[in-house]
Amino acid sequence: MNELLIHGRQLAGPALVVLDLLGTFVFALSGAAAGVKNKLDLFGLTVLAFATGNAGGITRDLLIGAVPPAAIEDWPYLAVCLAAGLAMFWWYPRIDVNRKPILLLDAAGLALFAVTGTQKALAAGLNPAMAAVMGMLSGIGGGIVRDILVNETPTVLRADLYAVAALSAGLAVVGGHALHVPPFAGMIVGAFLCLFLRLMAIFRGWHLPTARAAAGDV
Amino acid sequence: MNELLIHGRQLAGPALVVLDLLGTFVFALSGAAAGVKNKLDLFGLTVLAFATGNAGGITRDLLIGAVPPAAIEDWPYLAVCLAAGLAMFWWYPRIDVNRKPILLLDAAGLALFAVTGTQKALAAGLNPAMAAVMGMLSGIGGGIVRDILVNETPTVLRADLYAVAALSAGLAVVGGHALHVPPFAGMIVGAFLCLFLRLMAIFRGWHLPTARAAAGDV
Amino acid sequence: MNELLIHGRQLAGPALVVLDLLGTFVFALSGAAAGVKNKLDLFGLTVLAFATGNAGGITRDLLIGAVPPAAIEDWPYLAVCLAAGLAMFWWYPRIDVNRKPILLLDAAGLALFAVTGTQKALAAGLNPAMAAVMGMLSGIGGGIVRDILVNETPTVLRADLYAVAALSAGLAVVGGHALHVPPFAGMIVGAFLCLFLRLMAIFRGWHLPTARAAAGDV
Repeated sequence: MNELLIHGRQLAGPALVVLDLLGTFVFALSGAAAGVKNKLDLFGLTVLAFATGNAGGITRDLLIGAVPPAAIEDWPYLAVCLAAGLAMFWWYPRIDVNRKPILLLDAAGLALFAVTGTQKALAAGLNPAMAAVMGMLSGIGGGIVRDILVNETPTVLRADLYAVAALSAGLAVVGGHALHVPPFAGMIVGAFLCLFLRLMAIFRGWHLPTARAAAGDV
Repeated sequence: MNELLIHGRQLAGPALVVLDLLGTFVFALSGAAAGVKNKLDLFGLTVLAFATGNAGGITRDLLIGAVPPAAIEDWPYLAVCLAAGLAMFWWYPRIDVNRKPILLLDAAGLALFAVTGTQKALAAGLNPAMAAVMGMLSGIGGGIVRDILVNETPTVLRADLYAVAALSAGLAVVGGHALHVPPFAGMIVGAFLCLFLRLMAIFRGWHLPTARAAAGDV
Repeated sequence: MNELLIHGRQLAGPALVVLDLLGTFVFALSGAAAGVKNKLDLFGLTVLAFATGNAGGITRDLLIGAVPPAAIEDWPYLAVCLAAGLAMFWWYPRIDVNRKPILLLDAAGLALFAVTGTQKALAAGLNPAMAAVMGMLSGIGGGIVRDILVNETPTVLRADLYAVAALSAGLAVVGGHALHVPPFAGMIVGAFLCLFLRLMAIFRGWHLPTARAAAGDV
């Protein structure tokens, strides 16, 4: 495997790194908020922020063999999680992670992680189907770990069009790759597709069927 | 470490791959069923199916350094999990994962994963004791992740002779290896031993003592 | 990465290995106790003991690229966990993991894992901040996995000065490294710092503020 390709720093330009850190910050905020709700102290809250912000990317990096993962190797990922933990600790009553602005930021983070994760998996030589799955995992992994740590069934497995929006973004990147479109174009299309699906889920209530309903139809 | 030995494709002949995919399918079914019971949508259910079918093998591959894991590198693992998710979604009322035929298939999957996992760990150069543990982990890892994701104490830690049956299979493979028996012979003996123990647990109620009972005895 | 540096056996002298195994044994005891409380059988209890004793170190090794992890490669780690599982199984009514002697042993295990984990991460080339985080993770990872497996919110995220004591130890090691102090000196200082903080938390009730209290202050 090509070391030059699979490490985030070589792969991602400065713009991508900034966006990646912004996504990490937003996810870390949601982790810290879950920590406050569960009455963790300042430190437990920061640990939860770091886990939520980086678990998806770390898992992806372990699976594609990019070790040590970028979030472990590069200190800015830790720094933004500390910032998110402290911000949530001081301003918690004024920050509500279930309100629309936070949901929109979260959707942006999801879109970003899904497309950069897919791109990184493709660069590591994965087949397209699994590269898109790795992109989805990058996006949803942090939320899954957050919910497991505070002892809840992961909402991302349940939330309307959450994982499916992340997968759509990954498939767009993979499709662009197959059509030899420049990577950045595929990533932009994928990110907007993911954002669109999440916005429709948030504002219009779009959702997938559940098996119980289907059983009633039959 | 020898790349040629530790990747599943080189190690396993076509018959083993088919059996491995069958085991993945059965475990994925049990994951999808847990998803339906927890009212996940079609997609969350498929994610849970994939995690249940492959978590054991992926964890083993990460631990022995076979990266990317076979379940990530080869698309058929994803395909059978999609099939299991869809099958459970459409036919859920008619599929009961706690009924005898499913339990038998599950026992077969456990036996298979335990012996192939042990063989793979031996080929990667692990010492025999840990190779058998890796085989057990391959067998029980998926069920553990499934139960954690739906927020339950893993039943495989609790179920009668479940983990111990998987470990027995691993020890048989390791024993055969030490005696220079051909690998396939050790795997067949191990698989039958695991199957036998699970069948005795299911039909005759065989089980290990728990500490509370032991404390009463003393 | 330098294979000679990142494997535990080369890095650690015999004294360190003995201390590492002692720490593993203590954590394995706490895992086995959680298993007994949750009515797992003898085997599930041993699996939980192994996971609790080794999850922190295994995760660290995966993240820094030391594969296979020492706990997988070297059989004594498995052996002490079996011993802990059997000991807890037979003597459970007489062993109370929440009593002072066990809490002190646990604090010693935490201190040890934190400093050896940090040292190992430094040797693998991680930057100092993340090396200290890896040390903390080595110390708290086992307890997190134990609590997730028995379906509880991890107490280490909640317990007074637990993760923060482990991180302090890591920072002391990293500080000694920056000042070119001999590694063993930094590790001794770090271990005593961690022990001191835990003892203050246990006997004097030292703790960090929680956000709810802070919100009341504002």
